[in-house]
Amino acid sequence: MPPAPLPRTNPAGSVAEPGATHPAGPFTQAERDAVYRAIETRRDVRGEFLARPLPDDVLLRILEAAHHAPSVGLMQPWNFILVRDLDARRRVHATFERRNAEAAAMFSGERAERYGALKLEGILTAPLNICVTCNRSRGGPVVLGRTHQRDTDLYSTVCAVQNLWLAARAEGVGVGWVSIFEPDDLKPLFGLPEEVEIVAYLCVGYVERLYDRPELEARHWAVRLPLSEVVFDERWRAPSALTVD
Amino acid sequence: MPPAPLPRTNPAGSVAEPGATHPAGPFTQAERDAVYRAIETRRDVRGEFLARPLPDDVLLRILEAAHHAPSVGLMQPWNFILVRDLDARRRVHATFERRNAEAAAMFSGERAERYGALKLEGILTAPLNICVTCNRSRGGPVVLGRTHQRDTDLYSTVCAVQNLWLAARAEGVGVGWVSIFEPDDLKPLFGLPEEVEIVAYLCVGYVERLYDRPELEARHWAVRLPLSEVVFDERWRAPSALTVD
Repeated sequence: MPPAPLPRTNPAGSVAEPGATHPAGPFTQAERDAVYRAIETRRDVRGEFLARPLPDDVLLRILEAAHHAPSVGLMQPWNFILVRDLDARRRVHATFERRNAEAAAMFSGERAERYGALKLEGILTAPLNICVTCNRSRGGPVVLGRTHQRDTDLYSTVCAVQNLWLAARAEGVGVGWVSIFEPDDLKPLFGLPEEVEIVAYLCVGYVERLYDRPELEARHWAVRLPLSEVVFDERWRAPSALTVD
Repeated sequence: MPPAPLPRTNPAGSVAEPGATHPAGPFTQAERDAVYRAIETRRDVRGEFLARPLPDDVLLRILEAAHHAPSVGLMQPWNFILVRDLDARRRVHATFERRNAEAAAMFSGERAERYGALKLEGILTAPLNICVTCNRSRGGPVVLGRTHQRDTDLYSTVCAVQNLWLAARAEGVGVGWVSIFEPDDLKPLFGLPEEVEIVAYLCVGYVERLYDRPELEARHWAVRLPLSEVVFDERWRAPSALTVD
């Protein structure tokens, strides 16, 4: 049976039912400002976590936000493993230290010196770590929308991470994404089966202050690109009328 | 020279400078509601685009939001190719049609029939398509944070897509992510060099109404998982005290 056509009206007071819709209009100016504030003031937090634990209601709201991410074929391939146990975090931290030493050795000269001075994780200082995984077999062998691009399930999981990060910002909670691991370092620590991949390892906790700019920019490690360098019209490298004066 | 320590205060009226910070506290209730509204009412739009073009200021704000995404090592590997040309979109659409026929053949029985009835893209009806790419060589051979997980640049680009999507929702603009392509189908159409990958192909335009629930849920293609199935404590499959009553 073909699906019902999209109804164009949603009677006031009706409960959500298949096909129910709501107006798609723009948010108020104040609401838009709030969304942009979250996007523009979100930071990758490494070294400034407070020990104070997150209340359950705050953490639930942040996880619900993550779980509202888009996913290919509504696959919802993500899981969020809440890691508070200090011994577990010590094992993760030891792994990070080993891999970070390897990473440091890939830089040379002044760059290597500056790399060594950067604080890149808050695994032990943040009261909560979240291991975000992607179950690549969820949804069965054929997933709508994933037939030609197998990694779209990983991308869906990243969308969940970004939702979580923005919700955390709105709640006054800092998040840092640690990526200096080999995935196989961590999988056995959490008992992950073969088909489950780690997409992100997050350090989560309250912070007092945030940098006005990305920390790597503030510390002169890298520079922000102007928007005109990342927007093109129609073809690669064709400057956009939108961003070029 | 080691970086300066993180200043704990940000004198009122000072301009942004390396190390300047601002309070990380929670947003007001109204601001949080706005962020959660964007997250919860964002939808993947396929079939209901209006022809009305986006004003430049709206599109600029959405692209700025994308460009404020987190990126590994501040790599900012993303580009946004604005595709309005109808001939170009026709070529993309023809590619989609071919791959979608292949996809349909992967389903069988009642599932195949229902797949065929789904509208999965708005390439020609949306006034704007955005091809979102990841330049894998940007930032040079060694990128901070990408030393052990090479695909974190792709993940950064996905964060930009999710920022764009949420900003668009706040602006009343619909976005649909089309993934039924082989990347090599599209790369030559936009002149992309070898090292640049397509992460997302987006259809963008105004819409009148949005589904209350994900369209694939509303159409009974897939079901939403309860939060308790995606949150674990400490280890894989260990039910979380947070979500289990």
